[in-house]
Amino acid sequence: MERHKDFDEGQKPLFPRIFGHEAGGIVESVGEGVTELKPGDHVLPIFTGECKECRHCKSAESNLCETLRFDNDRGHMLADGKTRFSKNGQPIYHFLGTSTFSEYTVSHAGCVAKINPEAPLDKVCVLSCGVSTGMGATLNVAKPQKGQTVAVFGLGAVGLAACEGARIAGASRIIGVDLNPARFDRAKNFGVTEFVNPKDHDKPVQEVIAEMTDGGVDRAVECTGSYQAMISAFECVHDGWGLAVLVGVPSKDDAFKTHPLNFLNERTVKGTIFGNYRPRTDIPARVEKYMNKELELDKFITHSVPFSEINKAFDYMLKGESLRCVIRMGA
Amino acid sequence: MERHKDFDEGQKPLFPRIFGHEAGGIVESVGEGVTELKPGDHVLPIFTGECKECRHCKSAESNLCETLRFDNDRGHMLADGKTRFSKNGQPIYHFLGTSTFSEYTVSHAGCVAKINPEAPLDKVCVLSCGVSTGMGATLNVAKPQKGQTVAVFGLGAVGLAACEGARIAGASRIIGVDLNPARFDRAKNFGVTEFVNPKDHDKPVQEVIAEMTDGGVDRAVECTGSYQAMISAFECVHDGWGLAVLVGVPSKDDAFKTHPLNFLNERTVKGTIFGNYRPRTDIPARVEKYMNKELELDKFITHSVPFSEINKAFDYMLKGESLRCVIRMGA
Repeated sequence: MERHKDFDEGQKPLFPRIFGHEAGGIVESVGEGVTELKPGDHVLPIFTGECKECRHCKSAESNLCETLRFDNDRGHMLADGKTRFSKNGQPIYHFLGTSTFSEYTVSHAGCVAKINPEAPLDKVCVLSCGVSTGMGATLNVAKPQKGQTVAVFGLGAVGLAACEGARIAGASRIIGVDLNPARFDRAKNFGVTEFVNPKDHDKPVQEVIAEMTDGGVDRAVECTGSYQAMISAFECVHDGWGLAVLVGVPSKDDAFKTHPLNFLNERTVKGTIFGNYRPRTDIPARVEKYMNKELELDKFITHSVPFSEINKAFDYMLKGESLRCVIRMGA
Repeated sequence: MERHKDFDEGQKPLFPRIFGHEAGGIVESVGEGVTELKPGDHVLPIFTGECKECRHCKSAESNLCETLRFDNDRGHMLADGKTRFSKNGQPIYHFLGTSTFSEYTVSHAGCVAKINPEAPLDKVCVLSCGVSTGMGATLNVAKPQKGQTVAVFGLGAVGLAACEGARIAGASRIIGVDLNPARFDRAKNFGVTEFVNPKDHDKPVQEVIAEMTDGGVDRAVECTGSYQAMISAFECVHDGWGLAVLVGVPSKDDAFKTHPLNFLNERTVKGTIFGNYRPRTDIPARVEKYMNKELELDKFITHSVPFSEINKAFDYMLKGESLRCVIRMGA
C-alpha cells in the first residue's frame, strides 16, 4: 500500500486564508499576459485548473492538470509564490485557487472558465464543483448504457447530481444509498427509484443490492468519502461488466480493501475528480446546456442567503437541510 | 470486504479426477442435440465455456458464461450431474470441463472451440488457456495505445504472452518485473525492453517503476497471483489515465489493499479471465491469425514429451525451465 503520499507531503494549509470554491463572477481586471479573458467576462472559478499544455491536459483521459491541479495546501499564486490578499500588512492566503467567500478574489487564468454572459451566475455557479463532480462521474466515467442499473452511495448534492446523470443516461433503476432516510424523498426528484438504508439490514449493503438486482448493479457511484462505502460500491457491481466510480475524498488513514477475486471476476473500479470535466474546455458547454433547458440546475439550489449571513449556509449544510445554499454578494 | 464467497462455497474438488486443461483434439463423437460439432472436427477444449444464450454471453463485455463459466470444483457433466469416467466401476471425476491429460475425454459442447483443421494441434493448443489469457489481458483489456508504456508482473508464459500483446500493440517500453532474473533474457524475445527485480531495490517496486517512467506506466498487467504484485501493479500506473489489469489467481486469504486516494487520482484497476476472449466466438480467429503468421506461438513452446513422460513436464515447469511443454499423445 504505497503512493498515497499526497497526504504526508501535503495537508499543510496556511492560515489565515479565504475559503470558498464554488462560485460565479465577473472579471474585474486581468494580469499581464492573460489573453483569453478581459474585464467584463462572466466566469466560473474552478478549484482545479487547466493549463492546456501539460501531458494531462493533452491526454484524452485526464483532467488532472500537472500545473494547476487541485491542491488544498497551495495558499499563493503560482507565478510568484505570493498571496494577493492582506489585512493590516499581514498576508491572508488563497484556497483552492479560488477563495470565493469574498467580493473580489484573484485566480490563475487557467482556473477560470469563461461562460455565456447571459447565464445567471446565481444558478450556474453550482457547475463549478459539486454538481459537475457528481454528474460527470456518471456521464463521463461510469457511462451507464440506457436501461442499465445504477447505485449511488450518498444522497447529498454530489450524489444527487450522480443520480441526475444516471437519469439523463436513461438508467432503468437508480438505487440511492444513504444512512439518512430524510434524504430519500427529495432524491426522487433526481431520478432515484429505490432506496437502501444500510442501517435497515443485518447484512452488508453490497449483498442487499446484489439480491435486489440479480447479482449486482451495472454501475455504482460512490459520493460519500467513506472508505466503507467505497468498498461496498465496488462489491455491489455485477461480475463480468460492473464498474464502480469513486468520487468521495478519503481520509488520511483510510484503506480500500477487497478480495482480489472480486477483480478477477471482471469488475472494475476507478476514481475521478471533478467528474472528469476539463474546467475551461468542458464547463462552458455545460452552461449552454442549462441555457437550452437541457440541464436542470435550479433544483440543486435549496437556499439563498446574503453574504452577511454566510454562517446560516453552513448551518443548513451541517443539518443536512440544504443541497446548495447560494450566497448573494453585495446584498 | 465481502463477495468473495467463491472460495467458501467452492474449493471442494472431487477426487480422483483427470487433470489437464490446455489442449487440442479431434472430435470422436457427439452427444444428442449437439449440432455445431461433428466427428472429425478439430477443436480446442477450453476451461471456461460459452453457451451463447445467457446475459454474460450476450453482453458486449463479459466472457463469464453463467452456465459454463470456469468452475474448479465441478467434477461432472452439467446435463445429468454424472461423470463420464470410471475405473473398475469407481467414478473418476472431471476437471475444469476439459480433463485433457487423457487420450479421450468428454466435454460440454459449449466448452469446445472448433478451429481450422489445417492448424497444427501441437502448436495452437497453447491458445486454449495461458497464451490467450496473457495476450488478451493486454490486447482486449489493458489496450495500450501505440507508444504507451506497459509494465508486466510475472514473466512466466502468461506474463510473456501479456508482453507479446504489448509488443503487438506497439508499446514504446515494456517493463518486465520478476523475482527470478533467469527469466529476463528469454523475455527479450517477447518484447520486454527493461527488467526490474523487486529484490534489487530497497523501496517498493511501484516507486521504482514510477521513477523510471516519470510518474508511472500507462498500463500494468499482473500475471503472478501474488496479492502484493496486484497492489504494486495498480500503484505503479500513472495518475490521470493509468490502468492496471489483474490476471493472476489469488489465494483464499489474500486482500487487495490500497489508499483510496490512488483511485481518486484517476487510476483504474480491473480483472479479467481468459483475456476476455469468448472461447467459441473468438478463439478460432486467433488460430487463423497463427495460420496467417500474424501471431507467434512456437516461441511459447520450449519442451515436448510423450504422454508416458508427463511428469517431466511438471519438473520443467516447477524448475522454471519451460514456458510450455507439449505432451504428445499416443507416442
